[in-house]
Amino acid sequence: MTSCARSPYSSAPAQGTLYMRPLPNSLAALDSDGGRALFRRALLEGTLEGYFKLAQQFHTQADPAYCGLGSLVCALNALGIDPGRRWKGSWRWFSEELLDCCKPLEEVRRSGITLEEAACLARCSGAAVAVHRAGHANGAAFREHLLAAASASDGPVLIVNYSRRAVGQTGSGHFSPIAGFDAATDQALVLDTARFKYPPHWMPVELLFAAMQERDVETGEARGWMLVNRSGVASMAAR
Amino acid sequence: MTSCARSPYSSAPAQGTLYMRPLPNSLAALDSDGGRALFRRALLEGTLEGYFKLAQQFHTQADPAYCGLGSLVCALNALGIDPGRRWKGSWRWFSEELLDCCKPLEEVRRSGITLEEAACLARCSGAAVAVHRAGHANGAAFREHLLAAASASDGPVLIVNYSRRAVGQTGSGHFSPIAGFDAATDQALVLDTARFKYPPHWMPVELLFAAMQERDVETGEARGWMLVNRSGVASMAAR
Repeated sequence: MTSCARSPYSSAPAQGTLYMRPLPNSLAALDSDGGRALFRRALLEGTLEGYFKLAQQFHTQADPAYCGLGSLVCALNALGIDPGRRWKGSWRWFSEELLDCCKPLEEVRRSGITLEEAACLARCSGAAVAVHRAGHANGAAFREHLLAAASASDGPVLIVNYSRRAVGQTGSGHFSPIAGFDAATDQALVLDTARFKYPPHWMPVELLFAAMQERDVETGEARGWMLVNRSGVASMAAR
Repeated sequence: MTSCARSPYSSAPAQGTLYMRPLPNSLAALDSDGGRALFRRALLEGTLEGYFKLAQQFHTQADPAYCGLGSLVCALNALGIDPGRRWKGSWRWFSEELLDCCKPLEEVRRSGITLEEAACLARCSGAAVAVHRAGHANGAAFREHLLAAASASDGPVLIVNYSRRAVGQTGSGHFSPIAGFDAATDQALVLDTARFKYPPHWMPVELLFAAMQERDVETGEARGWMLVNRSGVASMAAR
Protein backbone atom coordinates (compact mmCIF):
# COMPACT_ATOMS: atom_id res chain seq x y z
CA MET A 1 0.00 0.00 0.00
CA THR A 2 1.64 3.22 -1.11
CA SER A 3 -1.36 5.38 -0.29
CA CYS A 4 -0.88 8.32 2.03
CA ALA A 5 -4.17 7.60 3.74
CA ARG A 6 -6.42 4.69 4.32
CA SER A 7 -8.85 5.41 1.54
CA PRO A 8 -12.35 6.24 2.70
CA TYR A 9 -13.66 4.79 -0.56
CA SER A 10 -12.48 1.27 0.08
CA SER A 11 -12.90 0.83 3.79
CA ALA A 12 -15.80 0.65 6.20
CA PRO A 13 -17.54 3.96 6.94
CA ALA A 14 -15.63 6.09 9.40
CA GLN A 15 -16.90 5.66 12.92
CA GLY A 16 -16.49 9.34 13.49
CA THR A 17 -14.86 12.34 11.93
CA LEU A 18 -11.68 14.15 12.87
CA TYR A 19 -10.47 17.72 13.07
CA MET A 20 -6.70 17.48 12.61
CA ARG A 21 -4.28 15.26 14.59
CA PRO A 22 -1.79 16.38 17.22
CA LEU A 23 1.76 16.63 15.85
CA PRO A 24 4.30 14.42 17.66
CA ASN A 25 6.06 16.53 20.31
CA SER A 26 9.41 16.08 18.63
CA LEU A 27 8.23 18.00 15.53
CA ALA A 28 7.86 21.79 15.75
CA ALA A 29 4.87 23.25 13.90
CA LEU A 30 5.97 26.12 11.67
CA ASP A 31 3.63 28.54 13.46
CA SER A 32 4.76 27.56 16.96
CA ASP A 33 7.21 29.86 18.76
CA GLY A 34 10.01 27.37 18.17
CA GLY A 35 9.03 26.85 14.53
CA ARG A 36 9.07 30.59 13.87
CA ALA A 37 12.49 30.95 15.47
CA LEU A 38 13.85 28.27 13.13
CA PHE A 39 12.15 30.03 10.22
CA ARG A 40 13.71 33.40 11.07
CA ARG A 41 17.18 31.92 11.37
CA ALA A 42 16.95 29.85 8.19
CA LEU A 43 15.61 32.88 6.33
CA LEU A 44 18.58 35.00 7.39
CA GLU A 45 21.00 32.15 6.62
CA GLY A 46 19.70 31.87 3.05
CA THR A 47 18.29 28.34 3.35
CA LEU A 48 14.68 29.38 2.85
CA GLU A 49 15.20 30.73 -0.65
CA GLY A 50 13.15 27.85 -2.03
CA TYR A 51 10.36 28.59 0.42
CA PHE A 52 8.68 31.53 -1.29
CA LYS A 53 7.69 30.01 -4.61
CA LEU A 54 6.50 26.86 -2.90
CA ALA A 55 4.66 28.49 0.02
CA GLN A 56 2.73 30.70 -2.34
CA GLN A 57 1.41 27.59 -4.08
CA PHE A 58 1.05 25.48 -0.93
CA HIS A 59 -2.15 23.55 -1.35
CA THR A 60 -4.47 21.14 0.47
CA GLN A 61 -4.45 17.81 -1.34
CA ALA A 62 -7.90 17.43 -2.91
CA ASP A 63 -8.48 13.94 -1.52
CA PRO A 64 -7.19 12.01 1.52
CA ALA A 65 -5.22 9.68 -0.80
CA TYR A 66 -3.83 12.42 -3.05
CA CYS A 67 -0.63 13.32 -1.15
CA GLY A 68 1.49 12.51 -4.20
CA LEU A 69 -0.74 14.46 -6.55
CA GLY A 70 -1.09 17.32 -4.08
CA SER A 71 2.68 17.60 -3.69
CA LEU A 72 3.04 17.65 -7.48
CA VAL A 73 0.38 20.36 -7.81
CA CYS A 74 2.42 22.52 -5.39
CA ALA A 75 5.64 21.85 -7.27
CA LEU A 76 4.30 22.36 -10.79
CA ASN A 77 2.54 25.62 -9.93
CA ALA A 78 5.52 26.82 -7.88
CA LEU A 79 7.84 26.21 -10.83
CA GLY A 80 5.52 28.19 -13.10
CA ILE A 81 4.94 25.28 -15.44
CA ASP A 82 2.06 25.98 -17.82
CA PRO A 83 -0.16 22.88 -18.14
CA GLY A 84 -1.21 24.00 -21.63
CA ARG A 85 -4.77 22.94 -20.80
CA ARG A 86 -7.78 24.64 -19.30
CA TRP A 87 -8.29 24.34 -15.55
CA LYS A 88 -11.44 26.41 -14.95
CA GLY A 89 -12.92 29.41 -16.73
CA SER A 90 -10.28 30.70 -19.09
CA TRP A 91 -7.35 29.79 -16.83
CA ARG A 92 -4.63 27.25 -17.30
CA TRP A 93 -3.45 25.93 -13.94
CA PHE A 94 -2.56 22.68 -12.21
CA SER A 95 -5.00 20.98 -9.90
CA GLU A 96 -5.17 17.25 -9.19
CA GLU A 97 -7.77 16.65 -11.92
CA LEU A 98 -5.20 17.72 -14.51
CA LEU A 99 -2.84 14.95 -13.37
CA ASP A 100 -4.83 12.29 -15.17
CA CYS A 101 -1.87 10.51 -16.71
CA CYS A 102 0.22 7.41 -15.84
CA LYS A 103 -2.53 6.00 -13.56
CA PRO A 104 -6.32 6.55 -13.54
CA LEU A 105 -7.38 9.03 -10.88
CA GLU A 106 -9.94 6.59 -9.48
CA GLU A 107 -7.16 4.12 -8.87
CA VAL A 108 -4.99 6.81 -7.26
CA ARG A 109 -7.89 7.54 -4.95
CA ARG A 110 -7.95 3.91 -3.84
CA SER A 111 -4.25 3.14 -3.55
CA GLY A 112 -2.17 6.31 -3.92
CA ILE A 113 0.91 6.40 -6.14
CA THR A 114 4.45 5.09 -5.95
CA LEU A 115 7.56 7.24 -6.28
CA GLU A 116 7.98 6.06 -9.88
CA GLU A 117 4.38 6.96 -10.69
CA ALA A 118 4.89 10.40 -9.16
CA ALA A 119 7.93 10.90 -11.41
CA CYS A 120 5.92 9.71 -14.41
CA LEU A 121 3.20 12.25 -13.60
CA ALA A 122 5.70 15.06 -13.23
CA ARG A 123 7.26 14.25 -16.62
CA CYS A 124 3.86 13.90 -18.19
CA SER A 125 3.09 17.41 -16.91
CA GLY A 126 6.11 18.99 -18.55
CA ALA A 127 8.65 18.83 -15.70
CA ALA A 128 12.15 17.37 -15.58
CA VAL A 129 12.58 14.87 -12.73
CA ALA A 130 15.41 12.97 -11.07
CA VAL A 131 14.38 10.13 -8.74
CA HIS A 132 16.56 8.81 -5.91
CA ARG A 133 15.93 5.79 -3.70
CA ALA A 134 17.07 6.35 -0.12
CA GLY A 135 19.75 3.94 1.04
CA HIS A 136 22.67 3.76 3.44
CA ALA A 137 25.01 4.98 0.72
CA ASN A 138 23.30 8.19 -0.34
CA GLY A 139 22.54 10.16 2.79
CA ALA A 140 25.16 12.70 1.76
CA ALA A 141 23.54 13.08 -1.66
CA PHE A 142 20.18 13.74 -0.02
CA ARG A 143 21.67 16.45 2.19
CA GLU A 144 23.34 18.02 -0.82
CA HIS A 145 20.05 18.09 -2.75
CA LEU A 146 18.15 19.38 0.26
CA LEU A 147 20.59 22.24 0.73
CA ALA A 148 20.57 23.06 -2.99
CA ALA A 149 16.76 23.13 -3.20
CA ALA A 150 16.49 25.16 0.03
CA SER A 151 19.05 27.69 -1.18
CA ALA A 152 17.67 28.27 -4.70
CA SER A 153 14.76 30.60 -5.31
CA ASP A 154 13.97 29.23 -8.72
CA GLY A 155 13.90 25.46 -8.38
CA PRO A 156 14.36 22.56 -8.19
CA VAL A 157 11.55 21.54 -5.86
CA LEU A 158 12.38 18.66 -3.55
CA ILE A 159 9.58 16.16 -2.86
CA VAL A 160 10.17 13.40 -0.33
CA ASN A 161 8.39 10.04 -0.14
CA TYR A 162 8.55 8.59 3.36
CA SER A 163 6.78 6.53 5.97
CA ARG A 164 4.52 8.53 8.25
CA ARG A 165 4.69 5.80 10.86
CA ALA A 166 8.48 6.08 11.02
CA VAL A 167 8.23 9.76 12.00
CA GLY A 168 5.61 9.12 14.68
CA GLN A 169 2.59 10.19 12.64
CA THR A 170 -0.53 8.18 11.83
CA GLY A 171 -0.78 6.80 8.30
CA SER A 172 1.52 4.92 5.97
CA GLY A 173 3.44 6.14 2.91
CA HIS A 174 3.37 9.87 2.30
CA PHE A 175 4.70 12.55 -0.06
CA SER A 176 5.59 16.12 0.96
CA PRO A 177 7.38 19.04 -0.66
CA ILE A 178 10.29 20.38 1.39
CA ALA A 179 10.52 24.16 1.61
CA GLY A 180 13.69 24.87 3.56
CA PHE A 181 16.47 23.79 5.85
CA ASP A 182 17.82 24.94 9.20
CA ALA A 183 21.49 24.02 9.33
CA ALA A 184 22.01 24.76 13.03
CA THR A 185 19.49 22.13 14.16
CA ASP A 186 19.68 20.01 10.98
CA GLN A 187 15.96 20.13 10.28
CA ALA A 188 13.91 20.29 7.09
CA LEU A 189 10.69 22.29 6.66
CA VAL A 190 7.94 19.87 5.58
CA LEU A 191 4.95 21.45 3.80
CA ASP A 192 2.50 18.65 4.48
CA THR A 193 -0.30 18.86 1.90
CA ALA A 194 -2.67 17.00 4.26
CA ARG A 195 -3.34 20.36 5.87
CA PHE A 196 -6.57 19.01 7.39
CA LYS A 197 -4.37 16.65 9.44
CA TYR A 198 -1.02 18.26 10.29
CA PRO A 199 0.26 21.84 9.97
CA PRO A 200 3.61 22.45 8.19
CA HIS A 201 6.42 21.43 10.51
CA TRP A 202 10.15 21.05 10.96
CA MET A 203 11.61 17.53 10.92
CA PRO A 204 15.12 16.33 11.83
CA VAL A 205 16.87 15.35 8.59
CA GLU A 206 18.13 12.10 10.16
CA LEU A 207 14.58 11.08 11.03
CA LEU A 208 13.26 12.02 7.60
CA PHE A 209 16.02 10.13 5.82
CA ALA A 210 15.42 7.04 7.97
CA ALA A 211 11.70 7.24 7.13
CA MET A 212 12.58 7.43 3.42
CA GLN A 213 14.52 4.16 3.64
CA GLU A 214 11.47 2.16 4.68
CA ARG A 215 10.36 -0.15 1.91
CA ASP A 216 7.14 0.46 0.04
CA VAL A 217 5.34 -2.87 0.46
CA GLU A 218 3.78 -2.48 -2.98
CA THR A 219 7.05 -2.15 -4.90
CA GLY A 220 9.42 -3.78 -2.39
CA GLU A 221 11.77 -0.84 -2.97
CA ALA A 222 12.95 1.83 -0.58
CA ARG A 223 11.12 5.13 -0.69
CA GLY A 224 13.18 8.19 -1.51
CA TRP A 225 13.04 11.63 -3.04
CA MET A 226 12.65 13.45 -6.31
CA LEU A 227 13.92 16.75 -7.64
CA VAL A 228 11.40 18.43 -9.91
CA ASN A 229 12.31 21.25 -12.23
CA ARG A 230 11.18 22.98 -15.39
CA SER A 231 12.15 21.03 -18.48
CA GLY A 232 15.33 22.26 -20.01
CA VAL A 233 16.71 23.25 -16.61
CA ALA A 234 19.66 21.00 -15.83
CA SER A 235 18.78 18.85 -12.85
CA MET A 236 21.22 17.07 -10.59
CA ALA A 237 22.22 13.67 -11.92
CA ALA A 238 20.80 10.56 -10.30
CA ARG A 239 23.23 8.78 -8.01
CA MET B 1 -21.63 43.13 -10.14
CA THR B 2 -19.66 42.16 -7.05
CA SER B 3 -18.04 39.15 -8.63
CA CYS B 4 -14.26 38.92 -8.58
CA ALA B 5 -14.19 37.61 -12.13
CA ARG B 6 -16.35 37.76 -15.17
CA SER B 7 -17.96 34.40 -14.74
CA PRO B 8 -17.16 31.89 -17.47
CA TYR B 9 -20.54 30.30 -16.87
CA SER B 10 -22.55 33.27 -17.98
CA SER B 11 -20.51 34.76 -20.81
CA ALA B 12 -19.54 33.67 -24.29
CA PRO B 13 -16.87 30.96 -24.44
CA ALA B 14 -13.40 32.30 -23.83
CA GLN B 15 -11.61 33.07 -27.06
CA GLY B 16 -8.43 31.69 -25.60
CA THR B 17 -7.04 30.62 -22.29
CA LEU B 18 -4.57 32.39 -20.02
CA TYR B 19 -1.60 31.45 -17.87
CA MET B 20 -1.49 34.17 -15.20
CA ARG B 21 -1.43 37.95 -15.76
CA PRO B 22 1.53 40.28 -15.29
CA LEU B 23 1.39 42.18 -12.00
CA PRO B 24 1.35 45.99 -12.39
CA ASN B 25 4.94 47.25 -12.00
CA SER B 26 4.03 49.26 -8.93
CA LEU B 27 3.21 46.08 -6.96
CA ALA B 28 6.09 43.88 -5.77
CA ALA B 29 5.47 40.14 -5.97
CA LEU B 30 6.29 38.47 -2.64
CA ASP B 31 8.85 36.21 -4.29
CA SER B 32 10.63 39.02 -6.16
CA ASP B 33 13.90 40.35 -4.72
CA GLY B 34 12.12 43.48 -3.54
CA GLY B 35 9.21 41.52 -2.13
CA ARG B 36 11.51 39.29 -0.13
CA ALA B 37 13.38 42.26 1.28
CA LEU B 38 10.08 43.73 2.52
CA PHE B 39 9.19 40.32 3.96
CA ARG B 40 12.48 40.02 5.87
CA ARG B 41 12.13 43.49 7.34
CA ALA B 42 8.48 43.09 8.32
CA LEU B 43 9.26 39.72 9.87
CA LEU B 44 12.00 41.20 12.04
CA GLU B 45 9.77 44.18 12.93
CA GLY B 46 7.01 41.89 14.20
CA THR B 47 4.39 42.86 11.60
CA LEU B 48 4.24 39.44 9.97
CA GLU B 49 3.01 37.64 13.07
CA GLY B 50 -0.34 37.11 11.36
CA TYR B 51 1.38 35.67 8.31
CA PHE B 52 2.15 32.14 9.49
CA LYS B 53 -1.32 30.87 10.31
CA LEU B 54 -2.68 32.39 7.12
CA ALA B 55 0.13 31.37 4.77
CA GLN B 56 -0.10 27.79 5.89
CA GLN B 57 -3.74 27.77 4.83
CA PHE B 58 -3.29 29.93 1.73
CA HIS B 59 -5.50 28.44 -0.91
CA THR B 60 -6.43 28.78 -4.58
CA GLN B 61 -10.08 29.82 -4.83
CA ALA B 62 -11.93 26.83 -6.29
CA ASP B 63 -13.69 28.85 -8.99
CA PRO B 64 -12.91 32.10 -10.84
CA ALA B 65 -15.85 33.81 -9.07
CA TYR B 66 -15.07 32.43 -5.60
CA CYS B 67 -12.64 35.09 -4.31
CA GLY B 68 -14.90 35.82 -1.35
CA LEU B 69 -15.38 32.16 -0.53
CA GLY B 70 -11.69 31.40 -1.12
CA SER B 71 -10.65 34.19 1.25
CA LEU B 72 -13.04 32.84 3.88
CA VAL B 73 -11.69 29.29 3.47
CA CYS B 74 -8.19 30.66 4.19
CA ALA B 75 -9.39 32.61 7.21
CA LEU B 76 -11.55 29.88 8.74
CA ASN B 77 -8.87 27.19 8.41
CA ALA B 78 -6.16 29.61 9.59
CA LEU B 79 -8.19 30.40 12.71
CA GLY B 80 -8.58 26.69 13.42
CA ILE B 81 -12.37 26.83 13.29
CA ASP B 82 -13.88 23.35 13.18
CA PRO B 83 -16.73 23.24 10.62
CA GLY B 84 -18.38 20.45 12.58
CA ARG B 85 -19.18 18.71 9.29
CA ARG B 86 -17.41 16.21 7.10
CA TRP B 87 -15.23 17.56 4.27
CA LYS B 88 -13.84 14.39 2.68
CA GLY B 89 -13.03 10.97 4.07
CA SER B 90 -13.21 11.24 7.82
CA TRP B 91 -11.94 14.82 7.96
CA ARG B 92 -13.68 17.98 8.99
CA TRP B 93 -12.24 20.95 7.10
CA PHE B 94 -13.34 24.05 5.24
CA SER B 95 -13.47 24.14 1.47
CA GLU B 96 -15.78 26.29 -0.62
CA GLU B 97 -18.42 23.55 -0.87
CA LEU B 98 -18.94 23.81 2.88
CA LEU B 99 -19.83 27.50 2.57
CA ASP B 100 -23.30 26.70 1.28
CA CYS B 101 -25.16 29.18 3.43
CA CYS B 102 -26.53 32.73 2.98
CA LYS B 103 -26.50 32.41 -0.86
CA PRO B 104 -26.68 29.34 -3.13
CA LEU B 105 -23.26 28.35 -4.45
CA GLU B 106 -24.57 28.36 -8.04
CA GLU B 107 -25.52 31.98 -7.63
CA VAL B 108 -22.15 32.82 -6.07
CA ARG B 109 -20.55 31.25 -9.12
CA ARG B 110 -22.49 33.61 -11.38
CA SER B 111 -22.28 36.86 -9.45
CA GLY B 112 -19.87 36.52 -6.52
CA ILE B 113 -20.77 37.83 -3.06
CA THR B 114 -21.03 41.21 -1.39
CA LEU B 115 -19.17 42.22 1.75
CA GLU B 116 -22.35 41.65 3.79
CA GLU B 117 -22.80 38.20 2.29
CA ALA B 118 -19.18 37.37 3.12
CA ALA B 119 -19.81 38.40 6.72
CA CYS B 120 -22.99 36.30 6.79
CA LEU B 121 -21.03 33.28 5.55
CA ALA B 122 -18.30 33.77 8.15
CA ARG B 123 -20.88 33.94 10.95
CA CYS B 124 -22.74 30.96 9.55
CA SER B 125 -19.42 29.06 9.72
CA GLY B 126 -18.85 29.76 13.39
CA ALA B 127 -16.69 32.89 13.21
CA ALA B 128 -17.12 36.29 14.83
CA VAL B 129 -17.02 39.14 12.29
CA ALA B 130 -16.86 42.92 12.32
CA VAL B 131 -17.59 44.66 8.98
CA HIS B 132 -16.35 48.15 8.10
CA ARG B 133 -17.22 50.23 5.04
CA ALA B 134 -14.27 52.26 3.77
CA GLY B 135 -14.84 56.02 3.81
CA HIS B 136 -12.93 59.25 4.19
CA ALA B 137 -13.45 59.17 7.93
CA ASN B 138 -12.05 55.77 8.81
CA GLY B 139 -8.66 55.45 7.16
CA ALA B 140 -7.07 55.60 10.61
CA ALA B 141 -9.31 52.76 11.85
CA PHE B 142 -8.27 50.65 8.87
CA ARG B 143 -4.60 51.21 9.61
CA GLU B 144 -5.15 50.34 13.23
CA HIS B 145 -6.89 47.08 12.31
CA LEU B 146 -4.25 46.24 9.71
CA LEU B 147 -1.47 46.71 12.23
CA ALA B 148 -3.32 44.70 14.88
CA ALA B 149 -4.00 41.78 12.51
CA ALA B 150 -0.43 41.84 11.17
CA SER B 151 1.05 41.87 14.67
CA ALA B 152 -1.07 39.08 16.20
CA SER B 153 -0.22 35.44 15.65
CA ASP B 154 -3.60 34.17 16.68
CA GLY B 155 -6.15 36.28 14.85
CA PRO B 156 -8.09 38.24 13.82
CA VAL B 157 -7.76 37.68 10.08
CA LEU B 158 -8.23 40.81 7.99
CA ILE B 159 -10.05 40.37 4.66
CA VAL B 160 -10.32 43.34 2.32
CA ASN B 161 -12.95 43.89 -0.37
CA TYR B 162 -11.69 46.26 -3.07
CA SER B 163 -11.75 47.15 -6.73
CA ARG B 164 -9.14 45.35 -8.80
CA ARG B 165 -9.41 48.04 -11.47
CA ALA B 166 -8.49 50.74 -8.96
CA VAL B 167 -5.18 49.00 -8.19
CA GLY B 168 -4.29 48.53 -11.87
CA GLN B 169 -5.35 44.90 -12.13
CA THR B 170 -7.85 43.33 -14.51
CA GLY B 171 -11.23 42.43 -13.07
CA SER B 172 -13.77 44.15 -10.85
CA GLY B 173 -14.60 43.62 -7.19
CA HIS B 174 -12.27 41.33 -5.28
CA PHE B 175 -11.64 39.88 -1.81
CA SER B 176 -8.20 39.06 -0.38
CA PRO B 177 -6.84 38.13 3.03
CA ILE B 178 -4.03 40.42 4.23
CA ALA B 179 -1.07 38.66 5.82
CA GLY B 180 1.24 41.41 6.97
CA PHE B 181 2.39 45.01 6.94
CA ASP B 182 5.67 46.79 6.21
CA ALA B 183 5.66 50.02 8.16
CA ALA B 184 8.72 51.55 6.49
CA THR B 185 7.13 51.58 3.03
CA ASP B 186 3.51 51.52 4.25
CA GLN B 187 2.54 48.43 2.30
CA ALA B 188 0.24 45.50 3.01
CA LEU B 189 0.91 41.90 1.98
CA VAL B 190 -2.02 40.70 -0.16
CA LEU B 191 -2.51 36.92 -0.34
CA ASP B 192 -4.51 36.91 -3.56
CA THR B 193 -6.50 33.66 -3.70
CA ALA B 194 -6.70 33.90 -7.52
CA ARG B 195 -3.27 32.29 -7.55
CA PHE B 196 -3.77 31.27 -11.20
CA LYS B 197 -3.81 34.99 -12.01
CA TYR B 198 -1.54 36.96 -9.66
CA PRO B 199 1.10 35.86 -7.13
CA PRO B 200 0.91 37.25 -3.56
CA HIS B 201 2.14 40.84 -3.59
CA TRP B 202 2.75 43.96 -1.56
CA MET B 203 0.37 46.88 -2.05
CA PRO B 204 0.63 50.48 -0.80
CA VAL B 205 -1.93 50.95 1.97
CA GLU B 206 -3.09 54.26 0.45
CA LEU B 207 -3.84 52.57 -2.86
CA LEU B 208 -5.62 49.66 -1.18
CA PHE B 209 -7.73 51.95 0.95
CA ALA B 210 -8.69 54.06 -2.07
CA ALA B 211 -9.69 50.87 -3.92
CA MET B 212 -11.85 49.86 -0.94
CA GLN B 213 -13.80 53.12 -1.16
CA GLU B 214 -15.08 52.38 -4.65
CA ARG B 215 -18.79 51.64 -4.61
CA ASP B 216 -20.07 48.17 -5.29
CA VAL B 217 -22.55 48.80 -8.13
CA GLU B 218 -24.78 46.02 -6.83
CA THR B 219 -25.27 47.43 -3.35
CA GLY B 220 -24.46 51.09 -4.02
CA GLU B 221 -22.27 51.00 -0.92
CA ALA B 222 -18.55 51.46 -0.52
CA ARG B 223 -16.50 48.30 -0.28
CA GLY B 224 -14.43 47.84 2.86
CA TRP B 225 -12.95 45.25 5.17
CA MET B 226 -13.82 42.64 7.72
CA LEU B 227 -12.07 41.24 10.76
CA VAL B 228 -12.74 37.56 11.23
CA ASN B 229 -12.03 35.74 14.47
CA ARG B 230 -13.03 32.68 16.41
CA SER B 231 -16.34 33.12 18.17
CA GLY B 232 -15.96 34.17 21.74
CA VAL B 233 -12.76 36.08 20.96
CA ALA B 234 -13.41 39.78 21.49
CA SER B 235 -13.20 41.53 18.14
CA MET B 236 -12.62 45.20 17.60
CA ALA B 237 -15.79 47.25 17.67
CA ALA B 238 -17.25 48.51 14.39
CA ARG B 239 -16.63 52.20 13.81
